[in-house]
Amino acid sequence: MIDPQSSMRVIHTHPIRIYYEDTDCAGVVYYSNYLRFAERARTEMFRGIGFSNIEYSKCEGITFAVRRCDAEYLKPAFLDDLVEVDTGNLDLQGASFWINQNVRRYRDLLVTMRIRLACVDKEGQVSRIPKQLLTNLQKLNRTVS
Amino acid sequence: MIDPQSSMRVIHTHPIRIYYEDTDCAGVVYYSNYLRFAERARTEMFRGIGFSNIEYSKCEGITFAVRRCDAEYLKPAFLDDLVEVDTGNLDLQGASFWINQNVRRYRDLLVTMRIRLACVDKEGQVSRIPKQLLTNLQKLNRTVS
Amino acid sequence: MIDPQSSMRVIHTHPIRIYYEDTDCAGVVYYSNYLRFAERARTEMFRGIGFSNIEYSKCEGITFAVRRCDAEYLKPAFLDDLVEVDTGNLDLQGASFWINQNVRRYRDLLVTMRIRLACVDKEGQVSRIPKQLLTNLQKLNRTVS
Amino acid sequence: MIDPQSSMRVIHTHPIRIYYEDTDCAGVVYYSNYLRFAERARTEMFRGIGFSNIEYSKCEGITFAVRRCDAEYLKPAFLDDLVEVDTGNLDLQGASFWINQNVRRYRDLLVTMRIRLACVDKEGQVSRIPKQLLTNLQKLNRTVS
Repeated sequence: MIDPQSSMRVIHTHPIRIYYEDTDCAGVVYYSNYLRFAERARTEMFRGIGFSNIEYSKCEGITFAVRRCDAEYLKPAFLDDLVEVDTGNLDLQGASFWINQNVRRYRDLLVTMRIRLACVDKEGQVSRIPKQLLTNLQKLNRTVS
Repeated sequence: MIDPQSSMRVIHTHPIRIYYEDTDCAGVVYYSNYLRFAERARTEMFRGIGFSNIEYSKCEGITFAVRRCDAEYLKPAFLDDLVEVDTGNLDLQGASFWINQNVRRYRDLLVTMRIRLACVDKEGQVSRIPKQLLTNLQKLNRTVS
Repeated sequence: MIDPQSSMRVIHTHPIRIYYEDTDCAGVVYYSNYLRFAERARTEMFRGIGFSNIEYSKCEGITFAVRRCDAEYLKPAFLDDLVEVDTGNLDLQGASFWINQNVRRYRDLLVTMRIRLACVDKEGQVSRIPKQLLTNLQKLNRTVS
Repeated sequence: MIDPQSSMRVIHTHPIRIYYEDTDCAGVVYYSNYLRFAERARTEMFRGIGFSNIEYSKCEGITFAVRRCDAEYLKPAFLDDLVEVDTGNLDLQGASFWINQNVRRYRDLLVTMRIRLACVDKEGQVSRIPKQLLTNLQKLNRTVS
């Protein structure tokens, strides 16, 4: 699906319910919490293609570290809202990738994020993305193009 | 259902996936986060009987405040775990109630909580639980007894 | 100092400023965050007698795990409040201890907590509190009696 | 002071101690928490020139909303670290401003953030920055140029 508003090729969607813990006394979702929501959505996208965090770190000895996160806050989310995190526009490189993640409430775009993730080993050194995972990510990326 | 381990009459179960945000550098879920999980589960239990947070506060002018929370930590939860929050043993009074909430991983009891919630109005004064909500809570409570 | 309101023998006080991140859309500090404040205060109390988290875990191979936390919420804290966490009433045993922690705003008692901490090794097994640390805790405990 | 590494004209520095709550099971500070640290530092910078959150929202009827936050993660922070948030390079406009915030551990630059804040009224509408606050921000900004 290509989201008409953000022109993102969406490859994964993850629902998030807003609870008291997510809000602040200005009455809206606190700005750093959208980064948590994005991480939950990435985790579920990875799980959907067969890779859990535990497998990465235990079996492959790698993990993904956020190197960059550019967030634009367009509209606030509120208590009890059911928002969705759309993930797409993967730009895969050998040891890192760019990804777009948007938080929506129905058709209302609330927050857009552009994130760069690097594959790192246990010593924190940059490492190539494991081949099987790279293949699965490429396949997922192609399903919408 | 009566949980054999905790002898709780379970009236509601809510699944929670453990993400990086929930853990700390000791490798386990940080102790205060179980209180967040419990609040998510209570919110969904209330929603299930027709009462959302927004309705309380906007229409009825009331909200529920935690007056007491006694938590016992038996075993840790880890990244990627799918835990469940069981809620039960409601002890309803006119303006407040006691509730038990257990966090389980399959049959492993991880954390037990006993919580007292008070119904308060916009000025923070204790207020009777709205009649319809009380009736629905009593009905829910009876389904397992 | 013995706090007249809570009759706690206070052995350590730690100030906490309330920021947006600590509050929720009910306009008050979210209930689980007081457990964070308590942990910050315990960390600083330990640091004050020469034991940092890193030293425990790296040098001694031990850490402290919360086994129980009973919290009573008396009054709310608000944005911009400067609250203080009083720690006292240590009840030291060989491998664990009970501790009281109160959150105050000036003379107003907001939250009282009674917490049991167990000393655990890297495998999560109960372990005796290292001798030097135990001695320092006993000394600290005696300064107010 | 002009930071040689980031060439930022630093107008305010705020220390942050890293606690368990800030870290995740990868052993480092969780990426969204740096945005919390930045907000704490901005709050203290504002307080230092005589404007608390409460005064804004109660007296002036305005608050500052983050419209954009671009974060670059260079190196991780760890448990027990004492980091500092440098704030500077204010670019004041009539109803919003850009600001740079860097998280350092001594001379090590860990995270750089470029943030745009908009002054909004109670209805969430863009509003001019109150004159006295604008004057004080300009004065603060000039102290280092």
